Amino acid sequence: MFERRQPIPIGEAVQKIMQYQLSGETEYINIEESFGRFLSKDLVATCDVPHFDRAPYDGFAVRAIDTQDASQANPVEFEVIDHIGAGMVSNMTVTENQAVRIMTGAIMPEGTDAVVMFEVAKTYEKDGKPFMAIKRSFKKGDNVSFRGEDAKEGEVLVKKGTLINPGIQAMLATFGYKDVPAAKKPIVGLFATGTELLDVGDPLVPGKIRNSNSHMIAAQIERVGGIVHYFGKLPDEFDTCFEAVKNAVNKVDLLITTGGVSVGDFDYLPEIYEKLGAEVLFNKVAMRPGSVTTVASHNGKLLFGLSGNPSACYVGFELFARPILRRMLFSEKPHLRKEQAILEVDFLKANPFTRFVRSSVFIENGRLKVTPSGLDKSNIIMSLAGANSLTILPGGTRGFAAGTEVDVLLLEDQFGSEWPW
Amino acid sequence: MFERRQPIPIGEAVQKIMQYQLSGETEYINIEESFGRFLSKDLVATCDVPHFDRAPYDGFAVRAIDTQDASQANPVEFEVIDHIGAGMVSNMTVTENQAVRIMTGAIMPEGTDAVVMFEVAKTYEKDGKPFMAIKRSFKKGDNVSFRGEDAKEGEVLVKKGTLINPGIQAMLATFGYKDVPAAKKPIVGLFATGTELLDVGDPLVPGKIRNSNSHMIAAQIERVGGIVHYFGKLPDEFDTCFEAVKNAVNKVDLLITTGGVSVGDFDYLPEIYEKLGAEVLFNKVAMRPGSVTTVASHNGKLLFGLSGNPSACYVGFELFARPILRRMLFSEKPHLRKEQAILEVDFLKANPFTRFVRSSVFIENGRLKVTPSGLDKSNIIMSLAGANSLTILPGGTRGFAAGTEVDVLLLEDQFGSEWPW
Repeated sequence: MFERRQPIPIGEAVQKIMQYQLSGETEYINIEESFGRFLSKDLVATCDVPHFDRAPYDGFAVRAIDTQDASQANPVEFEVIDHIGAGMVSNMTVTENQAVRIMTGAIMPEGTDAVVMFEVAKTYEKDGKPFMAIKRSFKKGDNVSFRGEDAKEGEVLVKKGTLINPGIQAMLATFGYKDVPAAKKPIVGLFATGTELLDVGDPLVPGKIRNSNSHMIAAQIERVGGIVHYFGKLPDEFDTCFEAVKNAVNKVDLLITTGGVSVGDFDYLPEIYEKLGAEVLFNKVAMRPGSVTTVASHNGKLLFGLSGNPSACYVGFELFARPILRRMLFSEKPHLRKEQAILEVDFLKANPFTRFVRSSVFIENGRLKVTPSGLDKSNIIMSLAGANSLTILPGGTRGFAAGTEVDVLLLEDQFGSEWPW
Repeated sequence: MFERRQPIPIGEAVQKIMQYQLSGETEYINIEESFGRFLSKDLVATCDVPHFDRAPYDGFAVRAIDTQDASQANPVEFEVIDHIGAGMVSNMTVTENQAVRIMTGAIMPEGTDAVVMFEVAKTYEKDGKPFMAIKRSFKKGDNVSFRGEDAKEGEVLVKKGTLINPGIQAMLATFGYKDVPAAKKPIVGLFATGTELLDVGDPLVPGKIRNSNSHMIAAQIERVGGIVHYFGKLPDEFDTCFEAVKNAVNKVDLLITTGGVSVGDFDYLPEIYEKLGAEVLFNKVAMRPGSVTTVASHNGKLLFGLSGNPSACYVGFELFARPILRRMLFSEKPHLRKEQAILEVDFLKANPFTRFVRSSVFIENGRLKVTPSGLDKSNIIMSLAGANSLTILPGGTRGFAAGTEVDVLLLEDQFGSEWPW
């Protein structure tokens, strides 16, 4: 009954998973569906930006050479021979002492090389024709946005693996990416095991609780960028669980189970992995919560056996499943982002194992601070809702006083870490 | 041609918008679709958690009174009369010197009031019946999780307006919220105006550019939590634009146009608002970029006329449209979150107007730092992609040296500010 398990360090456990080079795939999606997806190829400038010389202000396009003698004492006069807005092209060629009235963004007319802003031009009519005069000179290129000034064709502007935000969506549009190369969302299978589990719509009965882990993990899968394939809940019966896991594993990129992974009398996952012939990468990690997290490999697929305890389940997913999923989304920084923060409260209990405490990071006067939640029992429920981070309290320590600097892993961040361990 | 506009302070402009009490609506959605949505009602505990006394560890459930004489010298023996896992209910009543083998999460059997962990129990058989013995005493309640210990029925656990994250999804499941009261996503209509605009799939032609603003704003609308209704792009022709805007306004909760709002010769939005009979809340704000942002009210709907310049368009949406949309999503902190950060680079240009510079906030040794992007022309394109914040550089200043503390508005944050101005 008392199986001996050898705990391994967290970093080693993560490494054992990451050595599986599950490769991501590309799918082309409409740009209108690309927000929040991950680029699977670099975003390359397909043209210069701007791709023609243009006016950055409203004004008059002129030949600089015609302005060189203009001064307070000697205004120079120009005939305004055309009038264009952005998107229009003048079919006039500007010659000596001619100008084209031009709006912001419009292409510079043939022959012109400078723009005179409205504020410095005096406009009037002569014989029913529009004219303008200036009292200063302009140099070639004054007030002109030149072709390629913002970006050159062929430049790599955004690296693959980057989350598509509004700015990147603007760039995709600029460069004509109607179909965007996006990382295909990995499909993550999910089972909850436990005879105690009711569905969310079920009334409560003594001894049973509603299955919350599946909904939590489903949201965590969505947050990381995967698609959830929920196979349902399973009672703690060996044959039922074995068949279910065996059939499910081929339908998904990755399979997660919650519960059944500890050393309790009805925890069948270890035996299921054995009967499947799966290679167990580890079944105990030197950490709290989540020490019984078990990861196995079968037919080239990874099987994540997360604890049925909600905190352990949550942490196990973020530390172990998140990075391999983000790798499949082409990320170069697939792990949770790690930063330093000042601990706001005492945590004076001796701490034999490294602990991951769900916590709330906030900023005060530009400094990261953190309040672990769920340090005492009454906080367990609220810690679920308020957590935006995991505070790492290293093992082998006598506790931490308020004011100590601690490492935190940021849960809502999309930037990530290369290797936080 | 030179219309005089009176610029108003940013805070005043925001206030003029926020006085419109556009009310949010509730819709009930399946819990499986609730991740990333906003609660429109408080999440209330519909039962105690746990809702029965339960074992927090694997062990033996006993009556504490039977253990009181146990010691190293005097082991006390218990007959193990039943064996239950989580979700099972023992139908035995435990009496003197009896115990039930119990797994984590299982309901405490009738008569028991303490749990003896496996580690301190010696198990053996006598006459084919299971027994266990202990050498220490236990108090009533030792190793028991009591009903209501984590949450009490009726408690408000999460406030309305909160974004549903994985932890909240777990709580919704725990409390049986199969149908979740979520803020209905506001529908935001969107037009791009400008004769220069091509669609994303169009080849480039001289003088024209692909419409990137619509894709950018669409992503910004999605990021804030709205639904985009894109009506297409419009040429700079008064009648076409007027009819389009007039027809669209009744189909959406809020209407955004990009471009046509400045004082250029082909900027028709001001006249369109006039002909519609819309009340213009403001048409000039003391800021850069985005000073020509115009907001009007018509038939109880707000019309946002954003600049056609990408930076101005982006900033105008975040400062002016975001908060009213978040208000419709029941948020109590609808504005962009404001924090302090250390400026990493010099920005020594005199600064007559308050500037919002797209920038990249990062954390170094627990301190927020910020590098504005797009301070020089060559950065314009990259500033689109990398921006996670807007640095506020107040007007009437002579520039800022690296190391100065500045205010930043965080773009990817979901927490928000109550009133940052």
